[in-house]
Amino acid sequence: MLQRLAERADALIENFRPGVMERLGLGPDALRSRNPALVYCAISGFGQDGPLAQRPAYDQIIQGLSGVMSVTGDERSAPLRVGYPVCDTIGGLTAAFAVCAALLRAKATGEGAFLDVSMLDATLATMGWVVSNYLNAGAVPRPIGNDNFTAAPSGTFRTGSGLLNIAANEDRQFEALCRVLGAPDLATDSRFAEREARKSHRAELTACLEPLLASRSAADWEAILEAAGVPAGRVLGLPEILAHPHVAAGGLLAAFRDVPGVPRDVQVTLPGFRIDGERPGPATRPPTPSEHRDRILAEAGFDAAARQALVESGAVR
Amino acid sequence: MLQRLAERADALIENFRPGVMERLGLGPDALRSRNPALVYCAISGFGQDGPLAQRPAYDQIIQGLSGVMSVTGDERSAPLRVGYPVCDTIGGLTAAFAVCAALLRAKATGEGAFLDVSMLDATLATMGWVVSNYLNAGAVPRPIGNDNFTAAPSGTFRTGSGLLNIAANEDRQFEALCRVLGAPDLATDSRFAEREARKSHRAELTACLEPLLASRSAADWEAILEAAGVPAGRVLGLPEILAHPHVAAGGLLAAFRDVPGVPRDVQVTLPGFRIDGERPGPATRPPTPSEHRDRILAEAGFDAAARQALVESGAVR
Repeated sequence: MLQRLAERADALIENFRPGVMERLGLGPDALRSRNPALVYCAISGFGQDGPLAQRPAYDQIIQGLSGVMSVTGDERSAPLRVGYPVCDTIGGLTAAFAVCAALLRAKATGEGAFLDVSMLDATLATMGWVVSNYLNAGAVPRPIGNDNFTAAPSGTFRTGSGLLNIAANEDRQFEALCRVLGAPDLATDSRFAEREARKSHRAELTACLEPLLASRSAADWEAILEAAGVPAGRVLGLPEILAHPHVAAGGLLAAFRDVPGVPRDVQVTLPGFRIDGERPGPATRPPTPSEHRDRILAEAGFDAAARQALVESGAVR
Repeated sequence: MLQRLAERADALIENFRPGVMERLGLGPDALRSRNPALVYCAISGFGQDGPLAQRPAYDQIIQGLSGVMSVTGDERSAPLRVGYPVCDTIGGLTAAFAVCAALLRAKATGEGAFLDVSMLDATLATMGWVVSNYLNAGAVPRPIGNDNFTAAPSGTFRTGSGLLNIAANEDRQFEALCRVLGAPDLATDSRFAEREARKSHRAELTACLEPLLASRSAADWEAILEAAGVPAGRVLGLPEILAHPHVAAGGLLAAFRDVPGVPRDVQVTLPGFRIDGERPGPATRPPTPSEHRDRILAEAGFDAAARQALVESGAVR
């Protein structure tokens, strides 16, 4: 049944451990021989081969092995996991990118692809300058808490009420910050006047800034610093940002009102982009079990009798 | 000059603040009127409109506003930033996906697109069950350190030497863990026999497991648990995983030996997927400033005299 669907499919995505699809007769060689334009995408924890290939693909385990945990937290609290399944997400997004790229080639040439997406590799490939600084400058990454390694003041600061991220990475931003805080002398202090000097006197700089920030709330400072051209933003909880007028204005959330068996709306986030002003997203509510079975089987060429036989045999549900 | 390049381009990607490209005469309306199939992708911190649109797009600020920091760390250490620029990365990956998807449509229909990628939205859209549990079950996310909310034992555990992630999310995995640790009685203990019971007795379970794990190193336990079918993995530093035989076998890293002005190899990570066994990646070393200028201008139809005039005018470098 699945073989027949794959003959008509543009793309197939699976995330079993390596070898399972072959055992089911659904491996890439079998399916691509009958549908050469098929884009076959296998997502696994560690890729289809290599010493770790048979390890299970749990987000937490990949966060630990990839070094993500080793750089998250400060000297006392690290290693720490990221509080949501970031490696699952990075693996899925990498697969979405790879599938669309391969479909583009398949539409032009008729040649499909076998895509081997590794959650570990996808995570390492997206760790940016933390990986690059180590590989090319020998800088062994350390967990540096809420400071941003590349500049100062750049990190999270206490205010009179709430935490505030400030990323005053450029001289003119730092000067504006000192002016707004009523301490223009800081900008010419020899410890802080130059970008590199500020990085080496990071703790002293924070000790100068936080008493000045104590006079107002994070929300007040956010508005004041924005007006002064200093990059800044509050540290919000998820309920706060999801209720923010910006999120409502952008239409990030969608609600389905008619989900059988669910006595309230089911809310989903839509993708993080708009196409010509419209946000793509699911056209219909989540299906109930078996709801689309007959339609999909009919599309695959099974008539009513054949569909009934498949269901009665237990091959589909 | 850039207008002329955009007339022949398949895709354009920019990450200025909203409005800058229009001021340069390079806005989507101007360019798409001359090249209707153009896929024009604008990446910004918060999207092209809405109350936060003019805020600068620094990774740290988006980590704070998105709620990522609020769920990372434990009750004492949160909020904490993720130790690498995860929002930059999620924004870029989302853009790569959106561009390829839009190119697929453009090749089929001749219709390009204006893609408005928001780093904030992309981050929220990829936070998975943390967002979904809040929106649909009212579960306000808390920072829970290295525990995985969805199961127990699932988190980071101390061993005789080093930290170990264990994700024994299923009953049979938990039973195997108890057996291997020489404590089969734990699996039938009324506090731990059922999945939900284990979650409510999480701290007691950890207090039972860690003394047993103290007899061996994390590396030993990783091998033993893997053989017993219990998902587990060490918490590694970036140098350790990048030197792991699995990473070498998978060809994740590439080196360029001939980068002018750099007295050593420049190493880069390649994408987290392979296409028919090959990993895509840059075909050439990073260019030096202006190295490709003449070739690109020639492709855009500027002859030698026109190229020289552009350079002399300062319009290109």
